[in-house]
Amino acid sequence: MIDAAELGDRLAGLEPIGRGEDGTTRLAWTAELTAAEGWFAEQAAAAGLRVERDPAGSLWAVPDAPEPWWATGSHLDSVRRGGRFDGALGVAAGFAVAECAAAPVAVLAFADEEGARFNTPTFGSRALVGRLDVPDVLARTDDEGVTLADAMRAAAIDPGGVLTAPGWLARLRGFLELHIDQTRALERLGAPAGAVSSLASRMRLALSFEGRADHAGTTGRDERRDALAAAARLIVAADELDPDLLVTASRILVSPNAFTTVPASVRLWIDGRTPDPQRLEAWRSALAGRAAALQAATGVEIELATASHTGGVAFDGRVLAALGDLPRIVCFAGHDAGILAERLPAGMVLVRNPTGVSHAPEEEVSLEDAAAGAGALLRALEALA
Amino acid sequence: MIDAAELGDRLAGLEPIGRGEDGTTRLAWTAELTAAEGWFAEQAAAAGLRVERDPAGSLWAVPDAPEPWWATGSHLDSVRRGGRFDGALGVAAGFAVAECAAAPVAVLAFADEEGARFNTPTFGSRALVGRLDVPDVLARTDDEGVTLADAMRAAAIDPGGVLTAPGWLARLRGFLELHIDQTRALERLGAPAGAVSSLASRMRLALSFEGRADHAGTTGRDERRDALAAAARLIVAADELDPDLLVTASRILVSPNAFTTVPASVRLWIDGRTPDPQRLEAWRSALAGRAAALQAATGVEIELATASHTGGVAFDGRVLAALGDLPRIVCFAGHDAGILAERLPAGMVLVRNPTGVSHAPEEEVSLEDAAAGAGALLRALEALA
Repeated sequence: MIDAAELGDRLAGLEPIGRGEDGTTRLAWTAELTAAEGWFAEQAAAAGLRVERDPAGSLWAVPDAPEPWWATGSHLDSVRRGGRFDGALGVAAGFAVAECAAAPVAVLAFADEEGARFNTPTFGSRALVGRLDVPDVLARTDDEGVTLADAMRAAAIDPGGVLTAPGWLARLRGFLELHIDQTRALERLGAPAGAVSSLASRMRLALSFEGRADHAGTTGRDERRDALAAAARLIVAADELDPDLLVTASRILVSPNAFTTVPASVRLWIDGRTPDPQRLEAWRSALAGRAAALQAATGVEIELATASHTGGVAFDGRVLAALGDLPRIVCFAGHDAGILAERLPAGMVLVRNPTGVSHAPEEEVSLEDAAAGAGALLRALEALA
Repeated sequence: MIDAAELGDRLAGLEPIGRGEDGTTRLAWTAELTAAEGWFAEQAAAAGLRVERDPAGSLWAVPDAPEPWWATGSHLDSVRRGGRFDGALGVAAGFAVAECAAAPVAVLAFADEEGARFNTPTFGSRALVGRLDVPDVLARTDDEGVTLADAMRAAAIDPGGVLTAPGWLARLRGFLELHIDQTRALERLGAPAGAVSSLASRMRLALSFEGRADHAGTTGRDERRDALAAAARLIVAADELDPDLLVTASRILVSPNAFTTVPASVRLWIDGRTPDPQRLEAWRSALAGRAAALQAATGVEIELATASHTGGVAFDGRVLAALGDLPRIVCFAGHDAGILAERLPAGMVLVRNPTGVSHAPEEEVSLEDAAAGAGALLRALEALA
């Protein structure tokens, strides 16, 4: 049994860190994240676990028992102005589970799960399974031009070590992650918690549009190469090409973005998700076709690249069986458990979110539902161990 | 006769100020503008003119002769990463004209013509004719959150005086502005210079889209209120509603603009221009209708406001006649001369721009063409005086 009030006490120590009027901001490799890691160390000490940091910067609270262990946990970083529970709930519940479990359980907090600062989602778990283009990601820059490598150094982590992270994977028997539902699926089912049967296939496209800066008032229609006008058409096309896909044009950078100048260049990121990987590929192809036609029609040079791609994940049958009669759910978000599932038995428990909102402060969870989910996770870990 | 080489010497003193690898940036009320005003004072002294500053911050180089005078000039500020000649050429040519003219001529450099920093185009000339909502514009902020009032104070100009600027208008008999062509119209005609018969009607719309931040991967299509998806549709609609209008969605601000979050809010500015004022009104109405339909369909709250509106300007017939046989042109840009034309005889001479590019470093002018344009302006001023 996991106690709801006790779980609330654990969370209460973490919640003020990075919390502002407009939500929670705890980006990877920042002072806020370091403060959250202080909370992690306190929780580990109270649970009799020893804290270690792997070469990718993820934190491990490990039991005094022979490796390999079953583990649980999630991440401590957030998006900008996100909710209180995303990631945090899974780590807090992990400590509650580790304290109660009849078998030794490690608690993990993966580094930079959101990837909000460097466009590097599930950084820590990808590093662990060796599925990270390390030179590429270390060179990525945040909005201030700081590279990921320098941000890691500023957080006292040697970026040169990231390539050695896969050596740590053998310490794990398997991984079970608890996370808030980021939809209203469980709310609709009237269920406090659910078991994720699979993760949807996902693709993030990075597009660039190169036009030309001209006077907005005096350049004729036939003479202008308007990068934003082209990008707007591709946003609409991406959204309309397949009505069953979840499509989001989430981020756009326009230059010079001035009142009286035709936009010269645009960078745009579009995210597409579906349970069907072939459908995702078809969408990308169709969008590339639209981009080529648009380039021919407008003179704006358009490049379309795949920034990240996950083919979808089916979770381990034995882990799913251990989660008993929780309702089964397909999840459209990416998670560290999905990355580990390539190499280890893994699974996920979702907790009901009445608003269905995620990555925003309106995200919501009741401690009773969270305790129910953590209880199911505890029973599964004990059965699997 | 205006000498091309001598005009080049004048410009050479101004060109380095605010010039970077990617163009010229001399925003209003900055150190760069102050440096350009130093150049203005030198030019005035050499031409035997006395420098005064009006209460809106515009510079006047005035002759030692009874008011009112005919005047010429333009502006010293630029857009971000603009060209070398926009505004600057008209001021330099103004001093060349004032030195040669048989009649007393004043040279003006209007404050903040571009409005690039505070969205306050033709600030100085609007202040002079009393067509400025002073409390509104003084409260506007730049990208760093500085108000226009504070920026003026930092430039040692009392913003409280702006309302008194119209008292200075009686010092002018009329105004003639020389400016680069911001199209290839003169290039196509094979003419070094042209006379502007009228300015097109212009409207700048400010739109806001309020949706909701949600997780980009997990929020169902029917649950999301995606502000950028709505804005993209309105950009396309604005462009397509009337193929004869010049339409530019020039500036967009998206929040939170993060990789994994549905865009919660967008601010967007769209510029529309046409010689036909009724057509512009019809376009705005149609776009407002599209916005209302989009709001109903998407749940994104859309507001559409008119940030600025000019009904079009027909320049004075006597001034036009004085410009002799220069080819006549309709101009789609706004200019200080167009603002003054409401209250004074005014006119404009455009100089050929082989690239037709404006508000970007690819803008181009030959000194010979500029000298020819300035010569026509000189003859017109002498005839009018």
